[in-house]
Amino acid sequence: MKNALTEWESILGPGSVVVDSDTLQSCSTATFATSQRVPAVIRPESREQVQQCLRVATRFGIKVYPVSTGKNWGYGSSVPVIDGCVIMDLGRMRRIVDFNETLGFVTVEPGVTQQQLFEFLRDRRSNLWMDATGSSPDCSLIGNTLERGFGHTPYGDHSNNFSNLEVVLPSGEFLETGFSQAAGVQAAPVYRAGLGPQLDGLFVQSNLGVVTRMTIWLMPEPEVFQAFFFRCALDADLPAIVDALRPLRLNGTIRSGIHLANDYRVLSGIQQYPWKETGNATPLTRDQIRTLREKLGFGAWNGSGALYGTAKQVAEGRRLIRKALRGNVLKLIFLNDRKLAFASRFSGPFRLLTGMDLRKTLELVLPVYGLLRGIPTDQSLKSAYWRKRTPPPAEKDLDRDRCGLMWCAPVAPAEGSHASVLATLASEILLRHGFEPMLSITLITERAIVCVVSITYDRDVAGEDDRAKVCLEELLASFATKGYMPYRLGIQSMRLSRPEGVPGQILDALKQHVDPAGILSSGRYEARDDDANRGPDGASIHRDLGKVRGD
Amino acid sequence: MKNALTEWESILGPGSVVVDSDTLQSCSTATFATSQRVPAVIRPESREQVQQCLRVATRFGIKVYPVSTGKNWGYGSSVPVIDGCVIMDLGRMRRIVDFNETLGFVTVEPGVTQQQLFEFLRDRRSNLWMDATGSSPDCSLIGNTLERGFGHTPYGDHSNNFSNLEVVLPSGEFLETGFSQAAGVQAAPVYRAGLGPQLDGLFVQSNLGVVTRMTIWLMPEPEVFQAFFFRCALDADLPAIVDALRPLRLNGTIRSGIHLANDYRVLSGIQQYPWKETGNATPLTRDQIRTLREKLGFGAWNGSGALYGTAKQVAEGRRLIRKALRGNVLKLIFLNDRKLAFASRFSGPFRLLTGMDLRKTLELVLPVYGLLRGIPTDQSLKSAYWRKRTPPPAEKDLDRDRCGLMWCAPVAPAEGSHASVLATLASEILLRHGFEPMLSITLITERAIVCVVSITYDRDVAGEDDRAKVCLEELLASFATKGYMPYRLGIQSMRLSRPEGVPGQILDALKQHVDPAGILSSGRYEARDDDANRGPDGASIHRDLGKVRGD
Repeated sequence: MKNALTEWESILGPGSVVVDSDTLQSCSTATFATSQRVPAVIRPESREQVQQCLRVATRFGIKVYPVSTGKNWGYGSSVPVIDGCVIMDLGRMRRIVDFNETLGFVTVEPGVTQQQLFEFLRDRRSNLWMDATGSSPDCSLIGNTLERGFGHTPYGDHSNNFSNLEVVLPSGEFLETGFSQAAGVQAAPVYRAGLGPQLDGLFVQSNLGVVTRMTIWLMPEPEVFQAFFFRCALDADLPAIVDALRPLRLNGTIRSGIHLANDYRVLSGIQQYPWKETGNATPLTRDQIRTLREKLGFGAWNGSGALYGTAKQVAEGRRLIRKALRGNVLKLIFLNDRKLAFASRFSGPFRLLTGMDLRKTLELVLPVYGLLRGIPTDQSLKSAYWRKRTPPPAEKDLDRDRCGLMWCAPVAPAEGSHASVLATLASEILLRHGFEPMLSITLITERAIVCVVSITYDRDVAGEDDRAKVCLEELLASFATKGYMPYRLGIQSMRLSRPEGVPGQILDALKQHVDPAGILSSGRYEARDDDANRGPDGASIHRDLGKVRGD
Repeated sequence: MKNALTEWESILGPGSVVVDSDTLQSCSTATFATSQRVPAVIRPESREQVQQCLRVATRFGIKVYPVSTGKNWGYGSSVPVIDGCVIMDLGRMRRIVDFNETLGFVTVEPGVTQQQLFEFLRDRRSNLWMDATGSSPDCSLIGNTLERGFGHTPYGDHSNNFSNLEVVLPSGEFLETGFSQAAGVQAAPVYRAGLGPQLDGLFVQSNLGVVTRMTIWLMPEPEVFQAFFFRCALDADLPAIVDALRPLRLNGTIRSGIHLANDYRVLSGIQQYPWKETGNATPLTRDQIRTLREKLGFGAWNGSGALYGTAKQVAEGRRLIRKALRGNVLKLIFLNDRKLAFASRFSGPFRLLTGMDLRKTLELVLPVYGLLRGIPTDQSLKSAYWRKRTPPPAEKDLDRDRCGLMWCAPVAPAEGSHASVLATLASEILLRHGFEPMLSITLITERAIVCVVSITYDRDVAGEDDRAKVCLEELLASFATKGYMPYRLGIQSMRLSRPEGVPGQILDALKQHVDPAGILSSGRYEARDDDANRGPDGASIHRDLGKVRGD
């Protein structure tokens, strides 16, 4: 290790090989309990340096764990899956290396953040919109895309809106995917597949290489943008909403994601836990949340989405959404910039005229309104401070502030019945474990929904880390029993990533080929049930549930 | 080989191992010259039989070349890339194994044809539309999708509208991709990626496995369907049209592919070569085609596309298309079923009123009108008989009828300048080699165009096979020099499929892992410039053009 550190320092220069205990401490801290130690952080600033560093790692057999910006909050932050890995922090690779206004794309390095791209487009007065997730504005575009993250706009399904990866293999060699396999191919940034078998999928949710560049597609700014928001009175209204909106997603009327947040999730965005009103008792019961949502004016489920187009296209979309949701929701409002400006100026008179308190609505919807047009926000991070006793600071750092947060996000077909099963199951489990069931359900594609369940707690309360972990395990196992697998895993759940069988064997062979020394991101999306990294009860989720398949 | 045939017969039953010379002759005949011999055809009817047959092949080291229905016309039909392969004909696997009207998908085996799915949906009075290509109604859905074929509807980009592959490896093992890696996962048919690295891209344009099942996504029938057709006077009008329509594709107004066919391409769909008028001289000159297109009423470029939605959505789309094309095109017409019915009844009076000969227009546009709503047609196969001296038969079989046909289909960014370069280059090369430049340019995605160049000739004319081959080589090399690579390859051009470098090494390692005996589809999307299968002049396209990339 000492020799490797010396070599890395000669490659990267002094200051880019970090071993001070503050940095190491912060790099090995997530939003839940971890015990992995990090011996050093190396910070290359170019693809060539990444290549050289990986050659050194391979030669000395030292495990390396790359992170883009380390903001994978709720899934492990920058903490490696296993103990003793050197973190390769790609945050200094912050170049936007290509940009095309006509064809709508940008090519970025892993350190480029949501906020950076947003400002880049704004400063050029570009007519292109990016997609943003509700996570930190400082999170990496590449990092999020490689985890199949998603946002709210028509380009919200990130892993289906990129092209043209540049990937460094553990050997130090690099490759480009699609048409970029050969030099100078014109269609490389716009036509992902290239010719022959497609390799790019191998590097998504993967430990086979370090992605050092990616082309991300951007949408043109529409003539008219209009967001819509609705809420419904009862938990039981959820399935009807999903079934009413799916046809509009399928026929192309709604191209944004449709985001449905339950009452607990909305409340956590507005305020912290009502310690006083509950006499410090947790969790917040169903009766209590019902009272609060009636008082504060939100629903059991609260939906959002947007329309993009000409005035007439948007008007027709509005009519179709109204028609679809009639009888299914309590309130449906459409918002645009003009209405927002009006509302913030004349919320008093508006209230008199319409009976609606727009200001209150605005507080709830403004961050989502921005996300629907690709504006990053740190507002949604507030909810991670839900159980804390002190208010969220201006600069939020969930790791540092010991916010407890674990996500569990199963995918299902976009049908009300599935949405209902997921929501019911999650609510029951979370409440039983003493946590509030904060849920969202997003129609991310025409056919699929993702239910994002968050376990939100205070890491400063003794025993909570353990209780949260047990709760997460039950969630994952219960979902799996019913056939719902998560779209993405936290570092503590990687054993779920591969059932036994042929696909895993193929990936093992690939891993062996590109990383014979096994130095890269050990355990990341490769652990199996028979690995060390098992459930707390020693259970094998795939095997116990009869989900092993093959021949 | 004899032992293998005996074992295959014991697995498949008599009649499913075919060695009669008529069958072998027809299986080794394409729409251009080939010399590969086929010793036998085996015809499994289930995944289990495919597994057993491949185990036998691996044990005896006998090369096998699977085809779905063998209708890969213009790219090699059912002929193997190299000599001596046994053809595995999957045409008997014709089951539609799953169908979901609500979520819009169907799961099929490789023998399921376009026509079969069309009739299946029609017979169930389904409200789902399939996408169809202009190739034979008898072509396989899986075969076309695995070659990244494309059609005309919003689901026209086939390789981005499937999920859930079942693949048999040469070892005889099988796997499923995405969430189907584990049993009983609900989202498998609707969420392609699954969890962890994505394997399905490896089996597209590939020789790594035999795909025995695929889920194909289907679009809901719109309330209103309206096709549009336009033409323009000059070759030089092409770039402006591409640039005018791209923004409508990018902003979601047009979700269909937009198909632009040049004058030669249109003429070949209406009639055969005008032998009399030209005194048997070929090729048809630019002056001659100009005269013919003016006489017959089509343009230098002829465009088509469609709108899908409610009456108002379609009306607004119409307005936007009119606005975009104003000044760029001669004639722009919108057609729906009502207008078509009216036109065929009252074409005489209509002509009096409007001066337009609708019947003539209809003859040109009807097959495309059908394709834009996913109705397969064999009309476009007529053009393959362009240079024949006898009219196309009712049942068209391009291989049997010795139609000469080779496709070459480069991809480019969706910009007028690229379209113009491709069309100009292709026209110059084809005419110089004595062939008519039949071209189409399709905006297949928001950002990419594919230019399909066809070399159409009569295989019964001595020397034409050779001349066509030389012409194809020049096309491929000239396109490659300027950075345009084809989206798909014919069996005679497979050496283009891999530049030297890291991606090819990864695929080699994979091939070695899944097919150590090298029995499956040898040469298919794996040949490199240094392989036996080189250009006629011994050239290495990638190396000579400086397109080799890597480290």
